[in-house]
Amino acid sequence: MKTPLTPLPGSVTAPRGFRAAGVFCDIKRLGTGKGSNKGKKRDLALIVSDVPATAAGMFTTNQACAAPVKVCLEQLKRGRAQAVVVNSGNANACTGKQGLQDAREMARFTEATLALPPGAALVGSTGRIGVAMPMDHVRAGIIEAALGLGTTAAHAAQAAEAILTSDTHAKQVAVQFKLGGRTVRLGGICKGAGMIQPGMSATGRRPAATPRHATMLCFLTTDAAVEAQALQAALREAVAHSFNRITVDGDMSTNDTVLVLANGRAGNRPLGVSAPGFPQFQAALSHACLALARMIVRDGEGVSRCVTVRVQGARSFADADAAARAVANSPLVKTSWHGGDPNWGRILAAIGYSAATIEESKVDIGYSAPGSRRILWSLRRGQPTAATFKALCAAVAPREFDLHVNLNIGWARAVIYAADLTEAYVDFNKGDVSDPSSLGG
Amino acid sequence: MKTPLTPLPGSVTAPRGFRAAGVFCDIKRLGTGKGSNKGKKRDLALIVSDVPATAAGMFTTNQACAAPVKVCLEQLKRGRAQAVVVNSGNANACTGKQGLQDAREMARFTEATLALPPGAALVGSTGRIGVAMPMDHVRAGIIEAALGLGTTAAHAAQAAEAILTSDTHAKQVAVQFKLGGRTVRLGGICKGAGMIQPGMSATGRRPAATPRHATMLCFLTTDAAVEAQALQAALREAVAHSFNRITVDGDMSTNDTVLVLANGRAGNRPLGVSAPGFPQFQAALSHACLALARMIVRDGEGVSRCVTVRVQGARSFADADAAARAVANSPLVKTSWHGGDPNWGRILAAIGYSAATIEESKVDIGYSAPGSRRILWSLRRGQPTAATFKALCAAVAPREFDLHVNLNIGWARAVIYAADLTEAYVDFNKGDVSDPSSLGG
Repeated sequence: MKTPLTPLPGSVTAPRGFRAAGVFCDIKRLGTGKGSNKGKKRDLALIVSDVPATAAGMFTTNQACAAPVKVCLEQLKRGRAQAVVVNSGNANACTGKQGLQDAREMARFTEATLALPPGAALVGSTGRIGVAMPMDHVRAGIIEAALGLGTTAAHAAQAAEAILTSDTHAKQVAVQFKLGGRTVRLGGICKGAGMIQPGMSATGRRPAATPRHATMLCFLTTDAAVEAQALQAALREAVAHSFNRITVDGDMSTNDTVLVLANGRAGNRPLGVSAPGFPQFQAALSHACLALARMIVRDGEGVSRCVTVRVQGARSFADADAAARAVANSPLVKTSWHGGDPNWGRILAAIGYSAATIEESKVDIGYSAPGSRRILWSLRRGQPTAATFKALCAAVAPREFDLHVNLNIGWARAVIYAADLTEAYVDFNKGDVSDPSSLGG
Repeated sequence: MKTPLTPLPGSVTAPRGFRAAGVFCDIKRLGTGKGSNKGKKRDLALIVSDVPATAAGMFTTNQACAAPVKVCLEQLKRGRAQAVVVNSGNANACTGKQGLQDAREMARFTEATLALPPGAALVGSTGRIGVAMPMDHVRAGIIEAALGLGTTAAHAAQAAEAILTSDTHAKQVAVQFKLGGRTVRLGGICKGAGMIQPGMSATGRRPAATPRHATMLCFLTTDAAVEAQALQAALREAVAHSFNRITVDGDMSTNDTVLVLANGRAGNRPLGVSAPGFPQFQAALSHACLALARMIVRDGEGVSRCVTVRVQGARSFADADAAARAVANSPLVKTSWHGGDPNWGRILAAIGYSAATIEESKVDIGYSAPGSRRILWSLRRGQPTAATFKALCAAVAPREFDLHVNLNIGWARAVIYAADLTEAYVDFNKGDVSDPSSLGG
C-alpha cells in the first residue's frame, strides 16, 4: 500500500510544536562583530520541541568520531530529547578531552538556556577538524538563537542555512500524510557537500557487513507519536536506503549524524513497529531522507553530474554494494563522467578490482535516463555492443543519468547515488593555506 | 650483508645478450603515415634475448584482466621466454574473444618474425580499454622493430619511450653487481601515470589478504643465470615492496604487468632460492623495482607532490596497509597535499574509516623530510601538539615528504608511496569526447 504523501513548504517547523532559529555567532572567529548576524552566513542552529519527544539517531562509524557524536550517543540511551543545537564552522572532531567537554557544555548550556532538564539537548557540529571550539561564541549564539526561536518557515530556513558549510544552498523537505485519521507532518534539513560517503549505524559501531565509508548532518522533526524503539528502527531503515547509499568523494566523515524527534502533537496513538500505521510513517521518513540525501549529492563540492549506479545480478548484496561503490568512487570513472565520456572500460576495470566476484564474459553495462527502463547497452556479456560512440556520449551528456551494471551471476542488487569528480572539487579542497579559516574539515 | 650496486646508464640492453627497439606504427590509428616513426611518439617495443631465458611475471589481480595478461599467464607456465612485445595506445582489455586472439597473434607473429619457437614471446599492452587492436599496424610495427633491434642504450631508450602513455618521460634503470665472482647486470623500463594502484600476483588470482587495488608495465632483463622458480620468487618479493606499494589514483588496471627475463650470459652458476648469491640478486632486483615504482609515482598524472605514507604500531600488517591506503587514496587528504595544507584532521578521519582498528586517543601523526627520523608531530596520542600551523605548512611544502602515522596499539607497519590529487589529473582524465583517440584507458 503506497502512502499518499503531500509535499509541504518549509522543513523542521512544519510539524506542530516545533520552533527553530539560526544565528551568526562567528564560530570560525573571523573577528567580525560577534553576535551580529548582519551579512554573515549563520553558523548556529537551534531546533526545539514544545514538549518532550522521542528521539533516534544514526551516526558515523568512523573510529575517530567527533565529540558531538559521542555526546548524542550518551543522550540517546534514554530515547528522548527536546532540543538540537548545531554549529557549522568547527567540527569539534579530533579535539581530545577538551572537545568532549565542549560538546557536553553545548548541550548543558542549551538545556539551561531553554530551561530544559539535563539530557534534553542533542548536539551536532560540522566544519574544520582539529580546532578547539570557541565556546564564548557558541554560548552567545545559543542565547541569541533561543531568543529568536519561531514556528515559521523562515525560522526553519534560518536553521537550514546555519548548518551549511561548503553547500551552495539550504536543503529542506516537509511532507504531510494521514495516520489513523490524524494529519501528521514530517520535516527535515540537511547539509553535505564534501567528505561524503556516510556509513552510519545507531551505535557508532560498525555492523559486520556495512559500507565502510561526509560530514553530512540531517535533522528531522515530526508531530507523529512514535515509540522510541520504533522511531530508531524506522530511522535505521530510512538511512540504509538514503544517506548510506550516497557518495561524493568516498571519504567518511568523523561527524555524520542523522537525528529525528517525534513529539506526538498530531495526537495519533503512539506507533510501535507492528502498529498498522507504522508502514505509512516509515514511507514518509524514508521519502524525506532520500529526498534530502539526493540533494546532498546534487550539491556536492564541485559536482557537475549526478549518476545513479544500479548494480544487479550479483551473488550477494555485499558484492553488489562493493561493485557499485568501486565504480562510484573510482577517480577515473568520476573524471570520465565529468568529461561526458562514456568510458565503460574504466567502469569494467573498477568492477573487476572491487571485492565483488564477477565473470567478465557475463557483464552488461548500459545507460538510461533517470529511472528509465530504456537502457542503451555499451557492453553485453562482456562484448562491446553496436552502440555508437556518439549515441553513448549522448546518453551520458545529461546532468543526471542512470548507469546500469548487470553481473548476471546472481540475484542481488544495490544502488549508489554518485557524483563526478571535477577540477572545482580539487580547487576547493586544496584550500588556501594563507587563510587557515578557509580550510574545510 | 648489503650488496654494493653500481648504477649503469641505460636499461634493458645493459645486460649482455639483450637487444631492444621501439617504433611508431600508429596503434591509435591517427591516420598518419603508417610505419613512419618521424616525429611521432613510438608505440611498439621489442625486447629480445639472444638466447632462451628463464622468465617470471607478476600480473594484475583485476578480474577483468586484459588479453595480453592472459596470454602471458599461459606462456609463463614453462618459466621460459626469449622476447617481449609491447604496444601502447590500446590496452586490448575488455575486447572479448577477438582480443584474446589478437594478443596470441601478437606473440605468434613476433615469434615467427624473429624465428623463435612457439611460446617464446610474451606480450604487453597499455592504452584505451574496449577498442579492438589494429592488427595490421601491429604486424607492421613488429617487422619494423625486429629490423631495428640493437644493443645500445639508445635502442633501450626507444623501447622505454614506446611503452609510455600519459607519462611525461621515459623511466629506465640499470645496475651492475658481483655474483660469485661474475659481474652481473640488471636493467628495466616501466610506464605508469594513471590507473595506478597495482595489486599483482603471479597467477592473476588474488591472494587472501593482498591489496585489492595502473596500468603500469615493467620489463626487466638480467644476464644472471637464475632458475625459473627462484626468478619468480625474487620477482614476487621485489614487486610486493615496490609496485604493489604505490598508488596514484587508487584505480587498479586491467593490464598491470611486470616481466623479467634472465638469460644467464653472465656465466654464473644458475641461482636457486637457497644459493648463496640469491640475496644479492634479490637486492638488485628489489632496488630496480623500487626505483622504477617511485618514478611512476613522481610522474603520475598531474602529480605535484609525492608523499611516502609510513604507518606503524598497527595490530597487523593488514591493518597497517589498510590505514596507509585509506590515507593515500582519500580525495580530501590528496587535495590538501596539493594545497600544501597540513590537514591532519583529514588524515585521522581517513584512518578512522579504514578497515584498520585504531584507538583515536593513541594515534600519532607527523611529518619529516624523505627518509628522515626528525619528525614534526602534529598529533600525539590523539591530542594536537604545540606545533604551529606555519611550521606544519613548512613540513608539507616540499615536493616530497614523509607522513608518519603511529597507531601505537601493535607492532606491524606498512609503507605506501602516494601522490596528491590535482586539477591537472581531473582535466587530463575527463578526456575530450570530440577526439575519442585522446581518451585514456
